[in-house]
Amino acid sequence: MESYLIKKHHLLTPGPTPIPESVLREGSKSIIHHRTPEFSKIYMEVTEGLRTVFETVQDVYILASTGTGAMEAAVVNILDPGDRVICINSGKFGARWAQICRTSGAKVEEIILEWGDDLPKEKLSERLSVHPDIKAVFSTLSETSTGTIYDIRGFSEVISLTDAIHVVDGISGVGAMPCPMDDWQIDVLIAGSQKLFMIPPGLSYIAFSPKAWDHVETSSLPRYYFDMRKYRQSLKKQTPPFTPGTSLIVQQKKALEVIFDITIEKIRENHMTLGEATRKAVQAIGLELFSKKPGNILTAVKVPPGMDGSQLVRLMQDKYKAHIAGAQSPHEGEFFRISHLGYVGGFDIIIALTALEMSLTELGFSFEPGKAIAVAEEILKEKWE
Amino acid sequence: MESYLIKKHHLLTPGPTPIPESVLREGSKSIIHHRTPEFSKIYMEVTEGLRTVFETVQDVYILASTGTGAMEAAVVNILDPGDRVICINSGKFGARWAQICRTSGAKVEEIILEWGDDLPKEKLSERLSVHPDIKAVFSTLSETSTGTIYDIRGFSEVISLTDAIHVVDGISGVGAMPCPMDDWQIDVLIAGSQKLFMIPPGLSYIAFSPKAWDHVETSSLPRYYFDMRKYRQSLKKQTPPFTPGTSLIVQQKKALEVIFDITIEKIRENHMTLGEATRKAVQAIGLELFSKKPGNILTAVKVPPGMDGSQLVRLMQDKYKAHIAGAQSPHEGEFFRISHLGYVGGFDIIIALTALEMSLTELGFSFEPGKAIAVAEEILKEKWE
Repeated sequence: MESYLIKKHHLLTPGPTPIPESVLREGSKSIIHHRTPEFSKIYMEVTEGLRTVFETVQDVYILASTGTGAMEAAVVNILDPGDRVICINSGKFGARWAQICRTSGAKVEEIILEWGDDLPKEKLSERLSVHPDIKAVFSTLSETSTGTIYDIRGFSEVISLTDAIHVVDGISGVGAMPCPMDDWQIDVLIAGSQKLFMIPPGLSYIAFSPKAWDHVETSSLPRYYFDMRKYRQSLKKQTPPFTPGTSLIVQQKKALEVIFDITIEKIRENHMTLGEATRKAVQAIGLELFSKKPGNILTAVKVPPGMDGSQLVRLMQDKYKAHIAGAQSPHEGEFFRISHLGYVGGFDIIIALTALEMSLTELGFSFEPGKAIAVAEEILKEKWE
Repeated sequence: MESYLIKKHHLLTPGPTPIPESVLREGSKSIIHHRTPEFSKIYMEVTEGLRTVFETVQDVYILASTGTGAMEAAVVNILDPGDRVICINSGKFGARWAQICRTSGAKVEEIILEWGDDLPKEKLSERLSVHPDIKAVFSTLSETSTGTIYDIRGFSEVISLTDAIHVVDGISGVGAMPCPMDDWQIDVLIAGSQKLFMIPPGLSYIAFSPKAWDHVETSSLPRYYFDMRKYRQSLKKQTPPFTPGTSLIVQQKKALEVIFDITIEKIRENHMTLGEATRKAVQAIGLELFSKKPGNILTAVKVPPGMDGSQLVRLMQDKYKAHIAGAQSPHEGEFFRISHLGYVGGFDIIIALTALEMSLTELGFSFEPGKAIAVAEEILKEKWE
């Protein structure tokens, strides 16, 4: 008999992340014009909600761009050509800070880490002391390419002893894990809509400390679309400077309601539980974690020796429609990444682990089938209320 | 730490069944009027599609009622008061045939089976020979209260040796398992929209053989809404006799497209695989099947001795949002039912089994956690292409 099974699509990637039905429906509402009191009300409510998630008294600006646009906005608003900066390059996205800074003519001191390695704040402190003229340090809260989280609070502590400002790529981490902008003395913080914020890709969020704003006012780098002075000026009139991502902002209003209804605290508990369950489950069947300091955003897992990691990921995606992420260049095929970021529940992780078990069996890896599920069950059932 | 996990809703009940996204979206389209060429086209396309699923050259009529309405339509259109009939009562829905027939003044010869028991056609033959004046035999293809399937083809064989007609409740089975109306000499066949047909509850489908139509023409039972002569007359004008379930019919058009795109054959393979995986998985952790002849529509599983089945079902529903069905009166608490009917994929069954394992553990049942999943994986991975 020919075999057949209905396939449904399961998204377990670190962006885009799953979107609640109520938020999807919001995106199908009739479009409204952005220069209206009706839109201004939504715009200001979202701005206010973002401040709550960023834990800041500063305004948070909404850009119609994905995260990389906000990274570029951070750079072109605070630097002058020739400025010396430190970029912590711990993976693909840390490397991107360095690329953008170089594109803007900065002198980049790169702290290059092995992928998955931690950076103790003392190492950053040493590097800062070598270069007393550092204008800014660019760091990453949760390095999406490896699932590693970094000591943003500690970095700020050592940076605050200098004149430098601290620019944090919080794209995949903000909201899902603690990163209070004001309390942790972060000068520029950015986030992306397709991560914890539970809406499709297309918006990014950025906020500046008063110290960072001083740089924005004086920076001589050319900037138009990302000129944050325009955004600040416009926000006083409760409107964006250019056509905004209207429908996405409408969806973000609904998604923030979903998030605040659950509460940020509980959203973080959800991430902690799913992260723990995923890590322990894959270890129980003999797999190793890739990161030395894994967070609860996503779990990077080493591919067993001799197995082609790209084939494993393809099998999970094509055969089981369980969309996990592979490893990015230059580590293709070495590990895979299961995301538990955003609107992800316990059974989403069970699906990922079951698809993983079936794929590993098919590719000849020896382990006790069902063991990953048993371990995940043990953790999940205690937390499910 | 207070625990929290995002809960998503997982529907594993034998009606309503899961609805594909494209079909859900169809239900949000603007309503159209039913006396228009536009609606007539949809109406006739759905009618034609239903004929294909019923495997009949007869017209299939769409009632704006759930399955019980179609059962009553069958009875009030073919019987006269005082007619003698046989009702095969093998569970809650077989019993309903007897109730409706009695309500219509029929003399009911009830073949009462233990729930979950099979009925060999020879037993029906014996009963028919005792009563040569039987006007109709009422049977059930898939008894939803127990998950048992019956030998409709064999029943027809013995019924066709008499003057009786064969009326089949195919509500939960039609489409999901073979039941060719013409080939199996079924005189009245009914089905329900919220089962294999992948749309919400609210429509039922009914078709009559030429022999059954003779009864419809002469039946003296009062009937208005369910008077099938009105439906037949109206269908010639490509329109329903009364206001139809307009949006549901629009959704049914889309759902039939989904079904025919997959193909009925593959839909049945899907049910066979999910049925087999579910049965073997629950048996692997020491549970027993309730039915002596389980089909692939749903799997009824005995609750372990000493455990409160209602508590088990409640735990799965409330804590895990895995909505399975309990046992109905008079067997409440004795078994539970996991449905794999309609738009259900392999991971839906994995969710049900994982929720079951966690719930059984919590209620103190001793088994090897993960074992049900391992067994299901073994079956599913072979069938998933």
